[in-house]
Amino acid sequence: MLVLVGMGLYDELDLSLRGLQELKACDSVYVELYTSRMPGLSLSRLQELAGKEVRRLSRRELEEGAERLLEEAEHRRVALLVAGDPLISTTHSALRLEAEKRGIPVRVVHNASVYSAVPSAAGLHNYKFGRCATIPRASGAYMPETPYHVLRENLERGLHTMLLLDLTEGEEMSAAEGIEYLLELESRLGMGVFSPSTTAVVVAQVGAPECRITAGRAERLAELGEALGGTPHTLVVPGELHFMEEEWLRRFWVD
Amino acid sequence: MLVLVGMGLYDELDLSLRGLQELKACDSVYVELYTSRMPGLSLSRLQELAGKEVRRLSRRELEEGAERLLEEAEHRRVALLVAGDPLISTTHSALRLEAEKRGIPVRVVHNASVYSAVPSAAGLHNYKFGRCATIPRASGAYMPETPYHVLRENLERGLHTMLLLDLTEGEEMSAAEGIEYLLELESRLGMGVFSPSTTAVVVAQVGAPECRITAGRAERLAELGEALGGTPHTLVVPGELHFMEEEWLRRFWVD
Repeated sequence: MLVLVGMGLYDELDLSLRGLQELKACDSVYVELYTSRMPGLSLSRLQELAGKEVRRLSRRELEEGAERLLEEAEHRRVALLVAGDPLISTTHSALRLEAEKRGIPVRVVHNASVYSAVPSAAGLHNYKFGRCATIPRASGAYMPETPYHVLRENLERGLHTMLLLDLTEGEEMSAAEGIEYLLELESRLGMGVFSPSTTAVVVAQVGAPECRITAGRAERLAELGEALGGTPHTLVVPGELHFMEEEWLRRFWVD
Repeated sequence: MLVLVGMGLYDELDLSLRGLQELKACDSVYVELYTSRMPGLSLSRLQELAGKEVRRLSRRELEEGAERLLEEAEHRRVALLVAGDPLISTTHSALRLEAEKRGIPVRVVHNASVYSAVPSAAGLHNYKFGRCATIPRASGAYMPETPYHVLRENLERGLHTMLLLDLTEGEEMSAAEGIEYLLELESRLGMGVFSPSTTAVVVAQVGAPECRITAGRAERLAELGEALGGTPHTLVVPGELHFMEEEWLRRFWVD
């Protein structure tokens, strides 16, 4: 059996009671930490809780070497711990699909995900969010325009946009870098979607006790640097604001 | 202090270790169960876990009587337990805002929400979901068209749509009723958005051990009734499907 256990947002205490029960019942426990980072997570405290060794898998081991994991799951109870919700990343839904194909029973223990926590932490109404997008790390000529166009489509409809920031092998993009990325695309495409005076919200370390929310004009937010709080950051560009959303953002506004 | 604690999706075991810690540290604990239902939740098991009485608040007590809750939070440590993520519903974000205005420290313990769990449980890619909508209960002339238009806009962009189903004081709408609602709007508006042969996915009791996923043509799903699994149901109408999403839905397809 393969048990996919979500770990939530910040540290090992975000594990649910059900998730912990599953870990205790498993023969072996693996953890994957490259698709997203939990800023407060301690592998040793996690092992203490589980009462057994928790082996960390590299990207290669999971994507190419999933074979070993699945073979083990055919005759033993194997848990894979994943940050956030255990099926948000396509890597893990692919693993679930492959397991099911082989007739391996799969269990899923859901948990908090940035997809639901960031909108609510930012005080913005969930049903007013359009499609979200990820801002990748530009390198040379490589600078995908998708986040810009997703933002444009949402704003045309008055919808909010959540922009996840690239995480490549532990290298986290800051909200400031994300803002620079959008400003660069604006200067190339000039469709009037995102300017230095666009209102944006930065959520730093959502789910952490010291989770910080900052709202303001894009250029101002980009200047703030570490004052925004530690990474991971998520960037939100609001569409039309309900008065209650406005009131909430004013509490976090920087001039 | 006011501590807003998310309870997750199914029962008291979805509580996070952090959430449980907070309950134990609080002077009094309240629970709100009308904005969404947790099919497996037992108030008595919850009280055992918390080691103290957990008082259930009615809609009136929370919306009109929040005064009492806030006054108590001014001098004592008060927890409010909420299904799913504690800030998704505007009722609770309004409460947070009011508390902050009065200088009452607020803590939030996030948890799994249908907004992130349903897309992943349905095997559909989160970043391909457009805006979501709620299908309310029609009564006489009252039949809002919003869910139909949200669906139309998403489909025009090839995006998936999650449709939450009305929950009025414990009266849960089934996926079949949701499908009838959309078919009725189609016959009124005739914009070719939703037909008996439209592909849809029903997720029943997401997060439950017996969570059931069923995919098929809308009219077929509506016929299935209890075979879809117990409520709460969530309805998903996919847009353009990635081959991996298609493969996943085929596993749950009914003819």
